[in-house]
Amino acid sequence: MVEGDKMAIELLQFSPNKIDTIFALESWVKTNESTLKYAINKTITVSPSELKKISTLKTPNKVLMIVDFYEFEEIKLASDCKTVLYLDGIQDPGNMGTILRTADWFGISTVFCSNDSVDLYNPKVIQSSMGAFMRVAVHTLELADIKAQFPELSLYGTVLEGESLYEAALQTPCLVAIGNEGNGIKPENLPLFDKKLSIPKSSRSKAESLNAGIATGVLCAFISNQAKLF
Amino acid sequence: MVEGDKMAIELLQFSPNKIDTIFALESWVKTNESTLKYAINKTITVSPSELKKISTLKTPNKVLMIVDFYEFEEIKLASDCKTVLYLDGIQDPGNMGTILRTADWFGISTVFCSNDSVDLYNPKVIQSSMGAFMRVAVHTLELADIKAQFPELSLYGTVLEGESLYEAALQTPCLVAIGNEGNGIKPENLPLFDKKLSIPKSSRSKAESLNAGIATGVLCAFISNQAKLF
Repeated sequence: MVEGDKMAIELLQFSPNKIDTIFALESWVKTNESTLKYAINKTITVSPSELKKISTLKTPNKVLMIVDFYEFEEIKLASDCKTVLYLDGIQDPGNMGTILRTADWFGISTVFCSNDSVDLYNPKVIQSSMGAFMRVAVHTLELADIKAQFPELSLYGTVLEGESLYEAALQTPCLVAIGNEGNGIKPENLPLFDKKLSIPKSSRSKAESLNAGIATGVLCAFISNQAKLF
Repeated sequence: MVEGDKMAIELLQFSPNKIDTIFALESWVKTNESTLKYAINKTITVSPSELKKISTLKTPNKVLMIVDFYEFEEIKLASDCKTVLYLDGIQDPGNMGTILRTADWFGISTVFCSNDSVDLYNPKVIQSSMGAFMRVAVHTLELADIKAQFPELSLYGTVLEGESLYEAALQTPCLVAIGNEGNGIKPENLPLFDKKLSIPKSSRSKAESLNAGIATGVLCAFISNQAKLF
């Protein structure tokens, strides 16, 4: 389920064949008549109160679409792949969506998730991904299996007491692992890493941790800059 | 209103005088008897169903506290202040809380907000700040007034088409401004900046923007590293 004007228009423009049904306010249908052209037979006009009933948002947008799953069956890294992410038990759907959006911004096209991560098709993941779920391939695969299948990847884990991200010499292609919001990376995965990295905390800070999405953003930015991904 | 074990214990340890009332499950009261010692007369034992009624969380924690506002009345920058943040119309309480948590991690002790930013005492801000609301001073002040009061600050605005954060020479002490989630920094504030900065997007990315919290994290990390804040 995909809600909102921006993602709906992107789907209509780039993946109209993925769209199953469109529920939209009459005003939205009128405004987007030309974009809707080939999907008009899939469109059901609804009233604001009907949209409110089916929406997961507190303030429903003007359009809600039912869309086929994006299946990225073949697990293959692009030949110019510099970085992939591994999410080790990310539970918060907002974090998951924001991480996909961040990966998308930094040109990271593959994200692996452990089995116990939140469902990619949770409506909050879709919503906070801001369309990234259409562009970033997400595969469920445990770290040990990734290591076996892609021995060319240097594996970096993010921990609270690791080598400073600012000082570490990193090699690409690499995998960067982000742990669960409360518990971090699973203990059994820790021996698999080539390096354990940390984002240095200010010496005067009493904060316990960074949000998982924020940590991902900082890691992606530093690695992108160092690897000259752009 | 502050919910959850971690923040409750931090308040009991560091700011017991701020606590007005504690609503807690009997089991929590028992486990935390010694920490509660001086606040036991403020403690009301509630049942799980009573806690659910007063909680804003879907899955209520074991304790909920009513706490006095943290008032940071005097606006003063520390003599070793390197960076402050300016939030120009941040609307999402989760973003606001995460930004405070991020500032806290990087040792940024002052955050300014425009008048139209989300209320600091929104329960979601408090919750996602993970205690940072107790440690980071938040002041509502418009950018033009900050510039007048603190002429020593270099002012940097984050925009979509600015100078690369990775290449820019930055001076401290500085203010870094983050704009509203949908509209960015207000047009009337743009002429006030010494530099406009961007977080470079991958050339192969079709993403429209980064989440405001993620952008803040990346900015804080780069500036901290450059300014050797640690």
